Amino acid sequence: MRYAYLGPAGTFTEAALRQVASPDEAEYLPQVDVVSAIEAVRDGRADLAVVAIESTVEGGVTATLDSLASGEPLVLLREVLVPVQFTLAAAPGVALADVRRISAHPHAWVQCRRWLAHRLPDVVHVPATSNTAPAALLQRAAAGELTGELGFDAALVPPAAVDTYGLTPLAQDVADNPQAVTRFVVVGRPGDVPPPTGADKTTLVVHLPDNEAGALLAMLEQFATRGVNLSRIESRPIGDALGRYSFSIDAEGHVADERVAEAIMGLHRRCPYVRFLGSYPRADAVEPTVHVGTSDADYVAARRWVADVRDGRAT
Amino acid sequence: MRYAYLGPAGTFTEAALRQVASPDEAEYLPQVDVVSAIEAVRDGRADLAVVAIESTVEGGVTATLDSLASGEPLVLLREVLVPVQFTLAAAPGVALADVRRISAHPHAWVQCRRWLAHRLPDVVHVPATSNTAPAALLQRAAAGELTGELGFDAALVPPAAVDTYGLTPLAQDVADNPQAVTRFVVVGRPGDVPPPTGADKTTLVVHLPDNEAGALLAMLEQFATRGVNLSRIESRPIGDALGRYSFSIDAEGHVADERVAEAIMGLHRRCPYVRFLGSYPRADAVEPTVHVGTSDADYVAARRWVADVRDGRAT
Amino acid sequence: MRYAYLGPAGTFTEAALRQVASPDEAEYLPQVDVVSAIEAVRDGRADLAVVAIESTVEGGVTATLDSLASGEPLVLLREVLVPVQFTLAAAPGVALADVRRISAHPHAWVQCRRWLAHRLPDVVHVPATSNTAPAALLQRAAAGELTGELGFDAALVPPAAVDTYGLTPLAQDVADNPQAVTRFVVVGRPGDVPPPTGADKTTLVVHLPDNEAGALLAMLEQFATRGVNLSRIESRPIGDALGRYSFSIDAEGHVADERVAEAIMGLHRRCPYVRFLGSYPRADAVEPTVHVGTSDADYVAARRWVADVRDGRAT
Amino acid sequence: MRYAYLGPAGTFTEAALRQVASPDEAEYLPQVDVVSAIEAVRDGRADLAVVAIESTVEGGVTATLDSLASGEPLVLLREVLVPVQFTLAAAPGVALADVRRISAHPHAWVQCRRWLAHRLPDVVHVPATSNTAPAALLQRAAAGELTGELGFDAALVPPAAVDTYGLTPLAQDVADNPQAVTRFVVVGRPGDVPPPTGADKTTLVVHLPDNEAGALLAMLEQFATRGVNLSRIESRPIGDALGRYSFSIDAEGHVADERVAEAIMGLHRRCPYVRFLGSYPRADAVEPTVHVGTSDADYVAARRWVADVRDGRAT
Repeated sequence: MRYAYLGPAGTFTEAALRQVASPDEAEYLPQVDVVSAIEAVRDGRADLAVVAIESTVEGGVTATLDSLASGEPLVLLREVLVPVQFTLAAAPGVALADVRRISAHPHAWVQCRRWLAHRLPDVVHVPATSNTAPAALLQRAAAGELTGELGFDAALVPPAAVDTYGLTPLAQDVADNPQAVTRFVVVGRPGDVPPPTGADKTTLVVHLPDNEAGALLAMLEQFATRGVNLSRIESRPIGDALGRYSFSIDAEGHVADERVAEAIMGLHRRCPYVRFLGSYPRADAVEPTVHVGTSDADYVAARRWVADVRDGRAT
Repeated sequence: MRYAYLGPAGTFTEAALRQVASPDEAEYLPQVDVVSAIEAVRDGRADLAVVAIESTVEGGVTATLDSLASGEPLVLLREVLVPVQFTLAAAPGVALADVRRISAHPHAWVQCRRWLAHRLPDVVHVPATSNTAPAALLQRAAAGELTGELGFDAALVPPAAVDTYGLTPLAQDVADNPQAVTRFVVVGRPGDVPPPTGADKTTLVVHLPDNEAGALLAMLEQFATRGVNLSRIESRPIGDALGRYSFSIDAEGHVADERVAEAIMGLHRRCPYVRFLGSYPRADAVEPTVHVGTSDADYVAARRWVADVRDGRAT
Repeated sequence: MRYAYLGPAGTFTEAALRQVASPDEAEYLPQVDVVSAIEAVRDGRADLAVVAIESTVEGGVTATLDSLASGEPLVLLREVLVPVQFTLAAAPGVALADVRRISAHPHAWVQCRRWLAHRLPDVVHVPATSNTAPAALLQRAAAGELTGELGFDAALVPPAAVDTYGLTPLAQDVADNPQAVTRFVVVGRPGDVPPPTGADKTTLVVHLPDNEAGALLAMLEQFATRGVNLSRIESRPIGDALGRYSFSIDAEGHVADERVAEAIMGLHRRCPYVRFLGSYPRADAVEPTVHVGTSDADYVAARRWVADVRDGRAT
Repeated sequence: MRYAYLGPAGTFTEAALRQVASPDEAEYLPQVDVVSAIEAVRDGRADLAVVAIESTVEGGVTATLDSLASGEPLVLLREVLVPVQFTLAAAPGVALADVRRISAHPHAWVQCRRWLAHRLPDVVHVPATSNTAPAALLQRAAAGELTGELGFDAALVPPAAVDTYGLTPLAQDVADNPQAVTRFVVVGRPGDVPPPTGADKTTLVVHLPDNEAGALLAMLEQFATRGVNLSRIESRPIGDALGRYSFSIDAEGHVADERVAEAIMGLHRRCPYVRFLGSYPRADAVEPTVHVGTSDADYVAARRWVADVRDGRAT
């Protein structure tokens, strides 16, 4: 299998990909950004993509959510959690006391703000386009491959990048929130809804009817009436006007579950746009609470009862 | 066809029955009370029963609601509306000024209270077991068939009873509310759900889960989420303890409608007891509002979409 | 204090009244019916009335609910529960085997139907206007005070009526449901809302906005949003047209409770008609569940917070 | 008045600030980022800050939402809308055909993606820390003030930056969505809630109770029950664990409105964290729909009614 992912070597995404398939058994296709990784699946260059979808600190990954929400349909097949802690690294010979300018991806910077304010209050942020880009630059500069000034002395990089790029760690486990984690998903073409495991989630994109006070409430009631809980709901602007939102939703359960199917049929009937983005096992393996009257058996019995009612055989 | 109904000749129920089937083409089987009329269908003595189910003034007819709510299943096949205005009648020779005691069924009395208070403030109510019983007694007394005192001078009777029993009308169109109407239903054995007409109602009996705050709200949401309006909801004690209620419900639409079927499947799943009492044409022929996303076509499209989703073919 | 009640001596209502005030310390004013008892308070002939409001078997007492729902305002001050079991009684010398016709108030008859069907399957029901009327007739007949035929051999009467009217008990504890109970209320003029006890109920009459699908749901949400449970909800026709209902409601808690006050203010704002019928101690002394964020302290803190917000002092 | 804002000269924020106060009558204090602008008000260096809070394309501005959601309380006093269209600019002498690398803030890049893909499909994105940073670099490079390579040939900049930095426009009105707009807010210290204008909004931050299925639904019902519509709702991770969200909400109306006050008191009672971020005039001056029973007069009447009820004077 060919996996597109946000490369190059050393990224958190690569760490996620390693949980999914080892480099020995899969072809790793590093991409420059999340959108490219997703497009690689759409255009057939890759079979699957591994992309970040949500982080504890930043919330939903905008590019992933937006890229999946429209365009040729893709589905999520699996999720993987990766702890997010950084290493502050520099070229060999640089000491922590020498550091004035730190290159970091803006998301990385945000996740280490308090640590930096406390330990290195005077450093300046030099934005990077990825978590590993400054590591590669540090390596090339150390090798004398760069002309001109590098513009920074150290970088916040994923732990795996230290070895990959031959850097020296100045500080490890850098993170304001030691429980910080990023959720990655494996994205593929439709056709393979993984079978229910009993601990699944279903991801959807839903637009609300325009100009309807209470439309969000009505949408949530589609789930509540069927006893389906939501584990994530995020709004994204639709982009055409202020005040118009798309909702990205994770519902507990699998589309093969009757209650989930009925709830999303309710969305399909009432909302102008619903996209199914997959049913797949939860990384935390937590099974949903099945409320009274919402098991598959309850649905089957109710359907049989209505059929009997229609045939004049109900008792 | 054999029709059981609250007889004898001259009752409002007979007036309702005449709207359903003329005496020439049907066999009229008068019964002593509503429960007997319903039981006549259950035990096969009659094919159908015509019984009052709701009046503008008194609300639900307790005996009818309770008798249909349990026991061997029966269904409603049709509804008929009869205006409820009384004639104050007496034996020939009696004048209005002579009237001191009026016999009337308690429901009749209630519906003429203000008229009586205004026109005959000093009369005494002598309760009757039916609307026509006092008419028959007046006739027999006039014929010298009764020993002992009759106990009343006049009676509030249905208009048709005046001729039937050879009485003299003292006042006509007696009713506090000139729009008063009683709704009758035709009751039969299950087996023949009348086909949808586009202006139907569905009648149900539902018990709520015990000890659940919000159970009534949750029950109503089963209808609201599917866009089904209720035209009648009445509570009746279940009878085993204070605070336990059965709800008698008329929902707009037919069980053949997808939205109605899904709503009552929701009740079947969540409530300890649901009885389907029929889908049948509304007497007023008012068609229900079909809200956006709740037509049969919307349901069919949603079901097909979910099937596609499950098969990996959704777009 | 002068108490109007459904007399005469021996009724269940009198048994309820005895729980409220002994005959030694109060003046008992028996009335011919519930409406008269209530009117006696309105016109000043009595200080208080004791009337049945709900029974396990029959549900709400129509005459009481309707009489309180309109007209000059009255309030409920207390509730009292009385077990409802009958004695089948006759004149001295009559044996159970002799009984062919039993006089009983229709409500009494309903509550003993199964017992009668099982033990005396062939008896005929002779309707009475009250539970004690046939007891008095039996006494007068035994005393030779009646001319003409009595029309029945025995009567279903409240236990206390046996001694009061000098009858012979033929069967005791007659009741299909041994837990049957009737709830009585003490009715007075507004002016004395009993202080909260911690285990109170509040009774209301509410009309819903016309022609509004979901109006009942919206009304129930006024309570749910404030965490107020309902222990009773009954519909009554408003009486002017089919399909228009008045709701009689018991809510858990006291109008002095912030959550109850805010909920009924919500009703006052949204519904065309709301009548407060009193806050008073529950006979069963069950304290309501106070959900998170709905205590008086929570309301007071929230009000203070909003005042601070408005003054620019919120933190 | 001293205004902190995202500078330097030529930014969209400066365009917003000019709508609020002209440079003649106010002191402009440019800051390096949104957080610094907000902090300048908190630490007293500025009286007010003007910051972007939401854009049509990117949705909520994360840094603004997060910075206002915690820390020392601040409030929003006014909102301003600025159309977002870019100018592609370069140093004098550069032609469109020469452009290979374009510097742009990531948000700017996103808003011009389709335009760029269509018109300049092969250009490379060089991320900038602000919309004007590359304009300044182009100016300094043109002036020979920079050593080393600039790294880009042109930049997407706000229209005002062209003159400010002496650049040459290569393309104007660059934007995928010609209706794109960014909403800015004026932020100040608490103390001055602007008076209601009849067309106001109220901004809040709310955390939901943990582990409560239906908590979002319950939160929305606090608004719906009082007839308050929401014009914006966005989720932000609280940051301590996946699945915990903070909601940023704009509600129609002013905290001085009774219905808004009652709704947010409901939030205060039920939610673990509520922060009021101000009531202020809507830029679009649209007045909210006031539903039946939700005007201030309705609230005042309801409160008076409950006071009467409690005093025994209700009618």
